[in-house]
Amino acid sequence: MIGVDWGTSSFRAFRMTADGAIIGRRAAPRGILHVENGGFAAALREEIGAWIAEGETRVILSGMIGSRQGWVEAPYLPCPAGAAELGAALVPIPFDGARLLLVPGLTDSDDAGTPEVMRGEETQIAGLLEQLGEDGIVCLPGSHSKWVRVTGGRITAFRTYLSGEAFAAIRADTILGRMMTDGPTDPAAFDRGVARAADHGHLLHHLFGVRTLGLFGRLGEAESASYLSGLLIGHEVRAALARAGTVHLIGAAPLCALYARAIATAGAQAIVMDEDAAARGLSRIARSASWT
Amino acid sequence: MIGVDWGTSSFRAFRMTADGAIIGRRAAPRGILHVENGGFAAALREEIGAWIAEGETRVILSGMIGSRQGWVEAPYLPCPAGAAELGAALVPIPFDGARLLLVPGLTDSDDAGTPEVMRGEETQIAGLLEQLGEDGIVCLPGSHSKWVRVTGGRITAFRTYLSGEAFAAIRADTILGRMMTDGPTDPAAFDRGVARAADHGHLLHHLFGVRTLGLFGRLGEAESASYLSGLLIGHEVRAALARAGTVHLIGAAPLCALYARAIATAGAQAIVMDEDAAARGLSRIARSASWT
Repeated sequence: MIGVDWGTSSFRAFRMTADGAIIGRRAAPRGILHVENGGFAAALREEIGAWIAEGETRVILSGMIGSRQGWVEAPYLPCPAGAAELGAALVPIPFDGARLLLVPGLTDSDDAGTPEVMRGEETQIAGLLEQLGEDGIVCLPGSHSKWVRVTGGRITAFRTYLSGEAFAAIRADTILGRMMTDGPTDPAAFDRGVARAADHGHLLHHLFGVRTLGLFGRLGEAESASYLSGLLIGHEVRAALARAGTVHLIGAAPLCALYARAIATAGAQAIVMDEDAAARGLSRIARSASWT
Repeated sequence: MIGVDWGTSSFRAFRMTADGAIIGRRAAPRGILHVENGGFAAALREEIGAWIAEGETRVILSGMIGSRQGWVEAPYLPCPAGAAELGAALVPIPFDGARLLLVPGLTDSDDAGTPEVMRGEETQIAGLLEQLGEDGIVCLPGSHSKWVRVTGGRITAFRTYLSGEAFAAIRADTILGRMMTDGPTDPAAFDRGVARAADHGHLLHHLFGVRTLGLFGRLGEAESASYLSGLLIGHEVRAALARAGTVHLIGAAPLCALYARAIATAGAQAIVMDEDAAARGLSRIARSASWT
Protein backbone atom coordinates (compact mmCIF):
# COMPACT_ATOMS: atom_id res chain seq x y z
CA MET A 1 0.00 0.00 0.00
CA ILE A 2 0.95 3.66 -0.28
CA GLY A 3 0.55 6.19 2.53
CA VAL A 4 0.54 9.92 1.77
CA ASP A 5 0.94 12.72 4.34
CA TRP A 6 -0.10 15.79 2.33
CA GLY A 7 0.00 19.05 4.22
CA THR A 8 -0.15 22.77 3.56
CA SER A 9 3.47 23.12 2.54
CA SER A 10 4.87 19.60 2.03
CA PHE A 11 4.09 16.22 0.48
CA ARG A 12 5.47 12.93 1.82
CA ALA A 13 4.67 9.45 0.48
CA PHE A 14 5.60 6.03 1.86
CA ARG A 15 5.43 2.68 0.11
CA MET A 16 4.74 0.07 2.77
CA THR A 17 4.25 -3.66 3.20
CA ALA A 18 0.96 -4.96 4.59
CA ASP A 19 2.39 -4.89 8.12
CA GLY A 20 3.65 -1.33 7.81
CA ALA A 21 7.35 -1.73 6.97
CA ILE A 22 8.53 1.22 4.84
CA ILE A 23 10.03 0.04 1.52
CA GLY A 24 10.03 3.34 -0.39
CA ARG A 25 9.81 7.08 0.27
CA ARG A 26 9.22 10.29 -1.60
CA ALA A 27 9.13 13.86 -0.33
CA ALA A 28 8.51 17.10 -2.22
CA PRO A 29 7.87 20.77 -1.32
CA ARG A 30 4.49 20.33 -2.95
CA GLY A 31 1.97 21.14 -0.25
CA ILE A 32 -1.63 21.88 -1.19
CA LEU A 33 -0.84 25.60 -1.37
CA HIS A 34 1.65 24.85 -4.15
CA VAL A 35 -0.76 22.84 -6.34
CA GLU A 36 -2.54 25.13 -8.78
CA ASN A 37 -6.10 24.95 -10.07
CA GLY A 38 -7.00 21.86 -8.07
CA GLY A 39 -4.49 19.72 -9.98
CA PHE A 40 -4.16 17.22 -7.12
CA ALA A 41 -4.75 14.08 -9.23
CA ALA A 42 -1.98 15.01 -11.68
CA ALA A 43 0.38 15.98 -8.83
CA LEU A 44 -0.24 12.68 -7.05
CA ARG A 45 0.31 10.71 -10.25
CA GLU A 46 3.64 12.48 -10.82
CA GLU A 47 4.78 11.62 -7.30
CA ILE A 48 3.60 8.01 -6.94
CA GLY A 49 2.63 6.93 -10.49
CA ALA A 50 5.71 4.72 -10.71
CA TRP A 51 4.68 2.74 -7.60
CA ILE A 52 1.14 2.34 -9.02
CA ALA A 53 2.61 1.11 -12.31
CA GLU A 54 4.54 -1.46 -10.27
CA GLY A 55 1.30 -2.85 -8.87
CA GLU A 56 0.30 -0.79 -5.81
CA THR A 57 -3.46 -0.22 -5.93
CA ARG A 58 -4.27 1.15 -2.47
CA VAL A 59 -3.47 4.72 -1.35
CA ILE A 60 -4.42 6.24 2.00
CA LEU A 61 -3.97 9.99 2.51
CA SER A 62 -4.02 12.31 5.51
CA GLY A 63 -3.50 16.01 6.18
CA MET A 64 -4.77 19.28 4.72
CA ILE A 65 -5.47 17.50 1.41
CA GLY A 66 -8.80 16.65 3.09
CA SER A 67 -9.63 20.29 3.92
CA ARG A 68 -11.86 22.76 2.13
CA GLN A 69 -8.74 24.08 0.35
CA GLY A 70 -7.67 20.53 -0.56
CA TRP A 71 -8.84 17.85 -2.97
CA VAL A 72 -12.00 16.51 -1.34
CA GLU A 73 -13.32 17.83 1.99
CA ALA A 74 -13.54 15.09 4.62
CA PRO A 75 -15.90 16.12 7.46
CA TYR A 76 -14.22 16.38 10.88
CA LEU A 77 -14.80 13.44 13.23
CA PRO A 78 -15.54 14.36 16.87
CA CYS A 79 -13.33 13.28 19.78
CA PRO A 80 -12.85 10.78 21.29
CA ALA A 81 -11.44 8.94 18.29
CA GLY A 82 -8.67 6.40 17.70
CA ALA A 83 -7.49 4.31 14.79
CA ALA A 84 -10.77 2.32 14.69
CA GLU A 85 -12.99 5.41 14.46
CA LEU A 86 -10.70 7.01 11.86
CA GLY A 87 -10.61 3.78 9.85
CA ALA A 88 -14.41 3.59 9.86
CA ALA A 89 -14.75 7.14 8.51
CA LEU A 90 -12.38 7.08 5.52
CA VAL A 91 -13.59 9.12 2.53
CA PRO A 92 -13.06 7.71 -1.01
CA ILE A 93 -11.59 9.87 -3.79
CA PRO A 94 -12.19 8.79 -7.42
CA PHE A 95 -8.85 8.12 -9.17
CA ASP A 96 -7.91 6.02 -12.23
CA GLY A 97 -5.76 2.98 -11.48
CA ALA A 98 -5.85 2.92 -7.68
CA ARG A 99 -8.29 3.08 -4.78
CA LEU A 100 -7.81 6.30 -2.74
CA LEU A 101 -9.09 6.82 0.80
CA LEU A 102 -8.79 9.96 2.88
CA VAL A 103 -8.38 10.05 6.68
CA PRO A 104 -10.73 12.66 8.23
CA GLY A 105 -9.51 15.31 10.63
CA LEU A 106 -10.77 15.64 14.20
CA THR A 107 -12.73 18.28 16.01
CA ASP A 108 -13.08 19.06 19.70
CA SER A 109 -14.21 22.07 21.70
CA ASP A 110 -12.62 23.73 24.68
CA ASP A 111 -14.29 24.41 28.07
CA ALA A 112 -15.96 27.54 26.69
CA GLY A 113 -17.30 25.82 23.57
CA THR A 114 -14.84 27.27 21.08
CA PRO A 115 -14.12 24.71 18.36
CA GLU A 116 -10.80 22.96 17.82
CA VAL A 117 -9.61 21.25 14.64
CA MET A 118 -6.71 19.10 13.42
CA ARG A 119 -5.90 17.45 10.09
CA GLY A 120 -2.93 15.13 9.81
CA GLU A 121 -1.91 15.16 13.47
CA GLU A 122 -4.56 12.49 14.31
CA THR A 123 -2.75 10.15 11.91
CA GLN A 124 0.68 10.86 13.39
CA ILE A 125 -0.71 10.15 16.84
CA ALA A 126 -2.35 6.94 15.63
CA GLY A 127 1.15 5.91 14.59
CA LEU A 128 2.48 6.52 18.07
CA LEU A 129 -0.09 4.64 20.10
CA GLU A 130 1.99 1.50 20.50
CA GLN A 131 4.96 3.44 21.88
CA LEU A 132 2.77 5.77 23.92
CA GLY A 133 0.70 3.12 25.68
CA GLU A 134 -2.96 3.71 26.42
CA ASP A 135 -2.64 7.16 27.98
CA GLY A 136 -0.39 10.14 27.46
CA ILE A 137 0.20 13.71 26.36
CA VAL A 138 1.45 14.46 22.85
CA CYS A 139 2.68 17.86 21.64
CA LEU A 140 3.08 18.63 17.94
CA PRO A 141 4.90 21.97 17.79
CA GLY A 142 4.65 24.26 14.78
CA SER A 143 2.82 27.29 13.39
CA HIS A 144 -0.28 26.02 15.16
CA SER A 145 1.02 23.84 18.00
CA LYS A 146 -1.26 21.04 19.15
CA TRP A 147 -1.37 19.56 22.67
CA VAL A 148 -3.26 16.27 22.64
CA ARG A 149 -4.53 14.02 25.40
CA VAL A 150 -4.69 10.29 24.69
CA THR A 151 -6.85 8.16 26.98
CA GLY A 152 -7.57 4.46 26.51
CA GLY A 153 -5.80 4.49 23.15
CA ARG A 154 -7.97 7.28 21.72
CA ILE A 155 -7.59 11.03 21.30
CA THR A 156 -9.93 12.49 23.91
CA ALA A 157 -9.12 16.22 23.85
CA PHE A 158 -6.76 18.71 22.24
CA ARG A 159 -5.88 22.41 22.27
CA THR A 160 -4.12 24.54 19.68
CA TYR A 161 -1.73 27.46 20.33
CA LEU A 162 -0.86 29.96 17.60
CA SER A 163 2.70 30.37 18.93
CA GLY A 164 4.66 29.64 15.73
CA GLU A 165 2.62 31.94 13.55
CA ALA A 166 2.59 34.65 16.23
CA PHE A 167 6.40 34.46 16.41
CA ALA A 168 6.70 34.91 12.64
CA ALA A 169 4.24 37.83 12.56
CA ILE A 170 5.83 39.65 15.52
CA ARG A 171 9.26 39.19 14.04
CA ALA A 172 8.23 40.31 10.55
CA ASP A 173 5.98 43.19 11.43
CA THR A 174 6.81 44.90 14.72
CA ILE A 175 9.53 47.10 16.15
CA LEU A 176 10.88 43.98 17.93
CA GLY A 177 11.80 42.42 14.59
CA ARG A 178 13.80 45.49 13.56
CA MET A 179 16.22 44.73 16.41
CA MET A 180 16.83 41.10 15.38
CA THR A 181 19.54 39.63 13.19
CA ASP A 182 19.27 36.21 11.54
CA GLY A 183 21.26 33.27 12.78
CA PRO A 184 21.08 29.96 14.60
CA THR A 185 19.14 29.75 17.86
CA ASP A 186 21.17 30.97 20.85
CA PRO A 187 20.35 28.44 23.61
CA ALA A 188 21.17 30.81 26.49
CA ALA A 189 18.95 33.57 25.07
CA PHE A 190 16.19 31.02 24.38
CA ASP A 191 16.38 29.88 28.02
CA ARG A 192 16.18 33.49 29.23
CA GLY A 193 12.96 33.89 27.23
CA VAL A 194 11.57 30.65 28.70
CA ALA A 195 12.41 31.85 32.21
CA ARG A 196 10.78 35.22 31.52
CA ALA A 197 7.50 33.43 30.68
CA ALA A 198 7.32 32.35 34.34
CA ASP A 199 7.53 35.94 35.61
CA HIS A 200 4.52 37.87 36.82
CA GLY A 201 2.80 39.74 33.99
CA HIS A 202 1.09 38.95 30.74
CA LEU A 203 2.64 37.90 27.42
CA LEU A 204 1.64 41.30 25.94
CA HIS A 205 3.75 42.99 28.65
CA HIS A 206 6.62 40.52 28.33
CA LEU A 207 6.76 41.27 24.59
CA PHE A 208 7.54 44.93 25.27
CA GLY A 209 10.47 43.79 27.42
CA VAL A 210 12.15 42.39 24.30
CA ARG A 211 12.36 45.99 23.12
CA THR A 212 13.54 47.55 26.38
CA LEU A 213 16.15 44.88 27.12
CA GLY A 214 17.58 45.66 23.68
CA LEU A 215 17.37 49.41 24.28
CA PHE A 216 19.34 49.09 27.53
CA GLY A 217 21.99 46.81 26.01
CA ARG A 218 20.88 43.76 27.99
CA LEU A 219 19.82 41.70 24.94
CA GLY A 220 21.90 41.70 21.76
CA GLU A 221 20.55 41.81 18.23
CA ALA A 222 21.84 38.27 17.65
CA GLU A 223 20.06 37.07 20.80
CA SER A 224 16.64 38.67 20.63
CA ALA A 225 14.96 36.32 18.11
CA SER A 226 15.96 33.36 20.31
CA TYR A 227 14.69 35.18 23.41
CA LEU A 228 11.35 35.90 21.67
CA SER A 229 11.09 32.24 20.63
CA GLY A 230 11.75 31.12 24.21
CA LEU A 231 9.22 33.64 25.54
CA LEU A 232 6.42 32.37 23.27
CA ILE A 233 7.25 28.67 23.67
CA GLY A 234 7.63 29.16 27.43
CA HIS A 235 4.19 30.76 27.64
CA GLU A 236 2.67 27.97 25.54
CA VAL A 237 4.25 25.17 27.60
CA ARG A 238 3.23 26.71 30.92
CA ALA A 239 -0.36 27.16 29.71
CA ALA A 240 -0.68 23.74 28.08
CA LEU A 241 1.08 21.61 30.65
CA ALA A 242 -1.61 20.92 33.19
CA ARG A 243 0.70 18.90 35.44
CA ALA A 244 4.19 17.44 35.59
CA GLY A 245 4.54 14.27 33.57
CA THR A 246 5.85 13.07 30.26
CA VAL A 247 5.19 14.85 26.96
CA HIS A 248 5.74 13.01 23.67
CA LEU A 249 6.93 15.40 20.97
CA ILE A 250 6.32 14.85 17.25
CA GLY A 251 7.80 17.24 14.70
CA ALA A 252 10.92 18.66 13.15
CA ALA A 253 13.94 17.75 15.28
CA PRO A 254 15.31 21.29 15.94
CA LEU A 255 11.92 22.61 17.05
CA CYS A 256 11.28 19.52 19.21
CA ALA A 257 14.66 20.08 20.89
CA LEU A 258 13.61 23.64 21.83
CA TYR A 259 10.26 22.45 23.18
CA ALA A 260 12.05 19.75 25.18
CA ARG A 261 14.18 22.47 26.85
CA ALA A 262 11.10 24.52 27.74
CA ILE A 263 9.20 21.45 29.00
CA ALA A 264 12.13 20.48 31.22
CA THR A 265 12.24 24.02 32.64
CA ALA A 266 8.54 23.69 33.49
CA GLY A 267 9.28 20.55 35.52
CA ALA A 268 8.06 17.89 33.10
CA GLN A 269 9.87 15.42 30.87
CA ALA A 270 9.90 15.35 27.07
CA ILE A 271 10.47 12.39 24.75
CA VAL A 272 11.12 13.26 21.11
CA MET A 273 9.50 10.67 18.80
CA ASP A 274 10.85 9.71 15.39
CA GLU A 275 9.53 11.36 12.24
CA ASP A 276 7.85 8.31 10.65
CA ALA A 277 4.80 8.54 12.89
CA ALA A 278 2.65 9.57 9.91
CA ALA A 279 3.61 6.44 7.92
CA ARG A 280 2.89 4.17 10.87
CA GLY A 281 -0.41 5.92 11.50
CA LEU A 282 -1.53 5.60 7.88
CA SER A 283 -0.70 1.90 7.97
CA ARG A 284 -2.46 1.36 11.27
CA ILE A 285 -5.63 3.19 10.20
CA ALA A 286 -5.68 1.23 6.91
CA ARG A 287 -5.36 -2.02 8.85
CA SER A 288 -8.10 -1.04 11.29
CA ALA A 289 -10.32 -0.50 8.23
CA SER A 290 -9.53 -4.12 7.21
CA TRP A 291 -8.27 -2.69 3.99
CA THR A 292 -4.85 -4.31 3.61
CA MET B 1 5.50 80.18 25.37
CA ILE B 2 5.27 77.36 22.84
CA GLY B 3 4.71 73.71 23.75
CA VAL B 4 5.54 70.94 21.24
CA ASP B 5 4.41 67.31 21.49
CA TRP B 6 6.62 65.64 18.85
CA GLY B 7 6.11 61.91 18.51
CA THR B 8 7.03 59.09 16.15
CA SER B 9 4.29 59.81 13.64
CA SER B 10 2.84 63.23 14.48
CA PHE B 11 3.77 66.79 15.45
CA ARG B 12 1.53 69.08 17.54
CA ALA B 13 2.39 72.59 18.73
CA PHE B 14 0.53 74.90 21.12
CA ARG B 15 1.00 78.61 21.67
CA MET B 16 0.10 79.33 25.28
CA THR B 17 -0.15 82.18 27.74
CA ALA B 18 1.98 82.11 30.89
CA ASP B 19 -0.84 80.41 32.82
CA GLY B 20 -1.34 77.70 30.16
CA ALA B 21 -4.32 78.99 28.14
CA ILE B 22 -4.03 77.79 24.53
CA ILE B 23 -4.06 80.70 22.07
CA GLY B 24 -2.79 78.91 18.94
CA ARG B 25 -2.42 75.38 17.57
CA ARG B 26 -0.63 73.58 14.78
CA ALA B 27 -0.68 69.87 13.88
CA ALA B 28 1.15 68.05 11.10
CA PRO B 29 1.79 64.41 10.13
CA ARG B 30 5.46 65.18 10.62
CA GLY B 31 6.61 62.72 13.28
CA ILE B 32 10.32 62.12 13.81
CA LEU B 33 10.19 59.17 11.38
CA HIS B 34 9.12 61.59 8.64
CA VAL B 35 11.97 64.08 9.15
CA GLU B 36 14.92 63.18 6.96
CA ASN B 37 18.64 63.54 7.70
CA GLY B 38 18.13 64.98 11.15
CA GLY B 39 16.49 68.14 9.80
CA PHE B 40 14.62 68.81 13.03
CA ALA B 41 15.64 72.47 13.38
CA ALA B 42 14.39 73.32 9.90
CA ALA B 43 11.17 71.35 10.41
CA LEU B 44 10.50 73.14 13.72
CA ARG B 45 11.16 76.54 12.15
CA GLU B 46 8.69 75.79 9.36
CA GLU B 47 6.02 74.84 11.87
CA ILE B 48 6.44 77.55 14.54
CA GLY B 49 8.71 80.16 12.94
CA ALA B 50 5.80 82.58 12.58
CA TRP B 51 5.09 82.50 16.33
CA ILE B 52 8.78 83.08 17.08
CA ALA B 53 8.77 86.02 14.67
CA GLU B 54 5.83 87.40 16.66
CA GLY B 55 7.92 87.39 19.82
CA GLU B 56 7.72 83.92 21.41
CA THR B 57 11.17 82.98 22.70
CA ARG B 58 10.55 79.93 24.84
CA VAL B 59 9.80 76.45 23.45
CA ILE B 60 9.35 73.27 25.51
CA LEU B 61 9.24 69.92 23.73
CA SER B 62 8.23 66.39 24.74
CA GLY B 63 7.97 62.99 23.07
CA MET B 64 10.16 60.83 20.86
CA ILE B 65 12.00 63.95 19.68
CA GLY B 66 14.11 63.34 22.83
CA SER B 67 14.95 59.73 21.90
CA ARG B 68 18.03 58.27 20.29
CA GLN B 69 16.24 58.50 16.92
CA GLY B 70 15.24 62.12 17.64
CA TRP B 71 17.01 65.48 17.77
CA VAL B 72 18.90 65.32 21.07
CA GLU B 73 18.77 62.30 23.39
CA ALA B 74 17.45 63.21 26.84
CA PRO B 75 18.42 60.56 29.41
CA TYR B 76 15.46 58.80 31.06
CA LEU B 77 14.56 59.97 34.53
CA PRO B 78 13.73 57.22 37.05
CA CYS B 79 10.34 56.91 38.78
CA PRO B 80 8.91 58.31 40.98
CA ALA B 81 8.73 61.61 39.11
CA GLY B 82 6.22 64.43 38.76
CA ALA B 83 6.19 67.88 37.20
CA ALA B 84 8.88 69.15 39.60
CA GLU B 85 11.37 66.36 38.81
CA LEU B 86 10.67 66.68 35.07
CA GLY B 87 11.08 70.46 35.23
CA ALA B 88 14.41 70.10 37.04
CA ALA B 89 15.76 67.76 34.34
CA LEU B 90 14.98 69.68 31.15
CA VAL B 91 17.65 69.33 28.44
CA PRO B 92 18.55 72.44 26.37
CA ILE B 93 18.76 72.28 22.56
CA PRO B 94 20.76 75.00 20.74
CA PHE B 95 18.48 76.94 18.35
CA ASP B 96 18.71 80.41 16.80
CA GLY B 97 16.11 82.88 18.00
CA ALA B 98 14.50 80.92 20.83
CA ARG B 99 15.38 78.96 23.93
CA LEU B 100 14.47 75.26 23.51
CA LEU B 101 14.10 72.80 26.40
CA LEU B 102 13.34 69.11 26.13
CA VAL B 103 11.31 67.09 28.68
CA PRO B 104 13.06 63.79 29.49
CA GLY B 105 11.24 60.45 29.31
CA LEU B 106 10.82 58.18 32.33
CA THR B 107 12.11 54.72 33.13
CA ASP B 108 10.90 52.12 35.60
CA SER B 109 11.42 48.39 36.00
CA ASP B 110 8.91 45.64 36.65
CA ASP B 111 9.00 43.11 39.52
CA ALA B 112 11.48 40.97 37.63
CA GLY B 113 13.83 43.85 36.82
CA THR B 114 12.92 44.23 33.14
CA PRO B 115 13.14 47.90 32.15
CA GLU B 116 10.20 50.09 31.19
CA VAL B 117 10.32 53.34 29.22
CA MET B 118 8.02 56.18 28.17
CA ARG B 119 8.55 59.42 26.24
CA GLY B 120 5.74 61.93 25.93
CA GLU B 121 3.22 60.14 28.14
CA GLU B 122 4.86 61.58 31.29
CA THR B 123 4.01 65.07 29.97
CA GLN B 124 0.39 64.15 29.18
CA ILE B 125 0.02 62.78 32.70
CA ALA B 126 1.60 65.91 34.20
CA GLY B 127 -1.19 67.78 32.43
CA LEU B 128 -3.84 65.64 34.11
CA LEU B 129 -2.68 65.84 37.68
CA GLU B 130 -5.12 68.55 38.69
CA GLN B 131 -8.11 66.58 37.41
CA LEU B 132 -6.74 63.27 38.65
CA GLY B 133 -6.04 64.31 42.20
CA GLU B 134 -3.05 62.96 44.07
CA ASP B 135 -3.56 59.26 43.27
CA GLY B 136 -4.94 57.33 40.34
CA ILE B 137 -4.51 54.94 37.42
CA VAL B 138 -3.99 56.30 33.91
CA CYS B 139 -4.10 54.21 30.73
CA LEU B 140 -2.73 55.53 27.44
CA PRO B 141 -3.86 53.00 24.80
CA GLY B 142 -2.01 52.60 21.50
CA SER B 143 0.60 50.50 19.72
CA HIS B 144 2.43 50.27 23.04
CA SER B 145 -0.25 50.81 25.69
CA LYS B 146 0.91 52.28 29.00
CA TRP B 147 -0.74 51.70 32.38
CA VAL B 148 0.52 54.24 34.89
CA ARG B 149 0.14 54.53 38.64
CA VAL B 150 0.12 58.05 40.12
CA THR B 151 0.75 58.37 43.86
CA GLY B 152 1.10 61.63 45.73
CA GLY B 153 1.02 63.59 42.48
CA ARG B 154 3.96 61.71 40.96
CA ILE B 155 4.27 58.79 38.53
CA THR B 156 5.38 55.90 40.71
CA ALA B 157 5.17 52.90 38.38
CA PHE B 158 4.13 51.94 34.86
CA ARG B 159 3.81 48.89 32.60
CA THR B 160 3.65 48.68 28.81
CA TYR B 161 1.63 46.19 26.74
CA LEU B 162 2.38 45.58 23.06
CA SER B 163 -1.32 45.03 22.26
CA GLY B 164 -1.76 47.53 19.42
CA GLU B 165 1.33 46.47 17.54
CA ALA B 166 0.52 42.78 18.11
CA PHE B 167 -2.96 43.36 16.66
CA ALA B 168 -1.51 44.95 13.53
CA ALA B 169 1.09 42.20 13.05
CA ILE B 170 -1.38 39.34 13.59
CA ARG B 171 -3.85 40.95 11.23
CA ALA B 172 -1.24 41.66 8.54
CA ASP B 173 0.73 38.48 8.71
CA THR B 174 -1.21 35.42 9.88
CA ILE B 175 -3.98 33.18 8.60
CA LEU B 176 -6.36 35.07 10.91
CA GLY B 177 -5.93 38.22 8.86
CA ARG B 178 -6.86 36.43 5.65
CA MET B 179 -10.36 35.92 7.06
CA MET B 180 -10.90 39.61 7.91
CA THR B 181 -12.53 42.34 5.87
CA ASP B 182 -12.03 46.05 6.53
CA GLY B 183 -14.73 48.16 8.09
CA PRO B 184 -15.83 50.00 11.22
CA THR B 185 -15.54 48.24 14.58
CA ASP B 186 -18.49 45.93 15.26
CA PRO B 187 -19.30 46.54 18.96
CA ALA B 188 -20.99 43.15 19.49
CA ALA B 189 -18.02 41.27 18.00
CA PHE B 190 -15.61 43.42 20.02
CA ASP B 191 -17.53 42.54 23.20
CA ARG B 192 -17.41 38.82 22.31
CA GLY B 193 -13.62 39.10 22.05
CA VAL B 194 -13.44 40.91 25.40
CA ALA B 195 -15.57 38.18 27.01
CA ARG B 196 -13.38 35.48 25.47
CA ALA B 197 -10.34 37.00 27.22
CA ALA B 198 -11.92 35.99 30.53
CA ASP B 199 -12.19 32.31 29.53
CA HIS B 200 -9.81 29.67 30.75
CA GLY B 201 -6.80 29.31 28.45
CA HIS B 202 -3.95 31.45 27.23
CA LEU B 203 -4.00 34.25 24.66
CA LEU B 204 -2.02 32.01 22.26
CA HIS B 205 -4.87 29.46 22.46
CA HIS B 206 -7.61 32.09 22.22
CA LEU B 207 -5.99 33.40 19.03
CA PHE B 208 -6.49 30.05 17.30
CA GLY B 209 -10.20 30.29 18.16
CA VAL B 210 -10.50 33.32 15.86
CA ARG B 211 -9.71 30.89 13.04
CA THR B 212 -11.97 28.04 14.12
CA LEU B 213 -14.97 30.26 14.90
CA GLY B 214 -14.64 31.55 11.32
CA LEU B 215 -14.21 28.05 9.93
CA PHE B 216 -17.43 26.89 11.62
CA GLY B 217 -19.40 29.94 10.51
CA ARG B 218 -19.69 31.37 14.03
CA LEU B 219 -17.69 34.56 13.32
CA GLY B 220 -18.15 36.47 10.06
CA GLU B 221 -15.37 38.03 8.00
CA ALA B 222 -16.74 41.49 8.85
CA GLU B 223 -16.69 40.66 12.57
CA SER B 224 -13.37 38.95 13.11
CA ALA B 225 -11.07 42.02 13.21
CA SER B 226 -13.31 43.52 15.91
CA TYR B 227 -13.30 40.21 17.80
CA LEU B 228 -9.48 40.06 17.63
CA SER B 229 -9.27 43.66 18.87
CA GLY B 230 -11.57 42.83 21.79
CA LEU B 231 -9.58 39.70 22.58
CA LEU B 232 -6.27 41.58 22.80
CA ILE B 233 -7.65 44.62 24.64
CA GLY B 234 -9.58 42.29 26.96
CA HIS B 235 -6.40 40.40 27.80
CA GLU B 236 -4.50 43.64 28.38
CA VAL B 237 -7.17 45.16 30.63
CA ARG B 238 -7.51 41.99 32.73
CA ALA B 239 -3.74 41.77 33.18
CA ALA B 240 -3.18 45.47 33.90
CA LEU B 241 -6.17 46.18 36.11
CA ALA B 242 -4.99 45.09 39.53
CA ARG B 243 -8.29 45.94 41.21
CA ALA B 244 -11.64 47.57 40.56
CA GLY B 245 -11.50 51.34 40.55
CA THR B 246 -11.33 54.23 38.14
CA VAL B 247 -9.07 54.33 35.10
CA HIS B 248 -8.35 57.66 33.38
CA LEU B 249 -7.90 57.19 29.63
CA ILE B 250 -5.80 59.50 27.45
CA GLY B 251 -5.69 58.98 23.69
CA ALA B 252 -7.61 59.01 20.44
CA ALA B 253 -11.34 59.07 21.18
CA PRO B 254 -12.39 55.93 19.22
CA LEU B 255 -9.69 53.78 20.85
CA CYS B 256 -10.48 55.20 24.31
CA ALA B 257 -14.14 54.29 23.77
CA LEU B 258 -13.16 50.66 23.08
CA TYR B 259 -10.93 50.54 26.17
CA ALA B 260 -13.75 52.02 28.25
CA ARG B 261 -16.02 49.12 27.14
CA ALA B 262 -13.41 46.53 28.08
CA ILE B 263 -12.68 48.23 31.42
CA ALA B 264 -16.40 48.29 32.27
CA THR B 265 -16.64 44.57 31.43
CA ALA B 266 -13.77 43.93 33.84
CA GLY B 267 -15.74 45.63 36.64
CA ALA B 268 -13.93 48.98 36.77
CA GLN B 269 -14.87 52.45 35.61
CA ALA B 270 -13.24 54.48 32.84
CA ILE B 271 -13.11 58.26 32.41
CA VAL B 272 -11.97 59.51 29.00
CA MET B 273 -9.87 62.66 29.37
CA ASP B 274 -9.68 65.44 26.79
CA GLU B 275 -6.90 65.50 24.21
CA ASP B 276 -5.10 68.67 25.36
CA ALA B 277 -3.34 66.93 28.22
CA ALA B 278 0.01 67.31 26.44
CA ALA B 279 -0.36 71.11 26.20
CA ARG B 280 -1.32 71.41 29.85
CA GLY B 281 1.57 69.14 30.86
CA LEU B 282 4.11 71.16 28.87
CA SER B 283 2.85 74.35 30.50
CA ARG B 284 2.88 72.84 33.97
CA ILE B 285 6.42 71.45 33.61
CA ALA B 286 7.65 74.80 32.26
CA ARG B 287 6.07 76.59 35.24
CA SER B 288 7.58 74.13 37.71
CA ALA B 289 10.96 74.98 36.16
CA SER B 290 10.26 78.66 36.94
CA TRP B 291 10.74 79.30 33.28
CA THR B 292 7.67 81.31 32.35
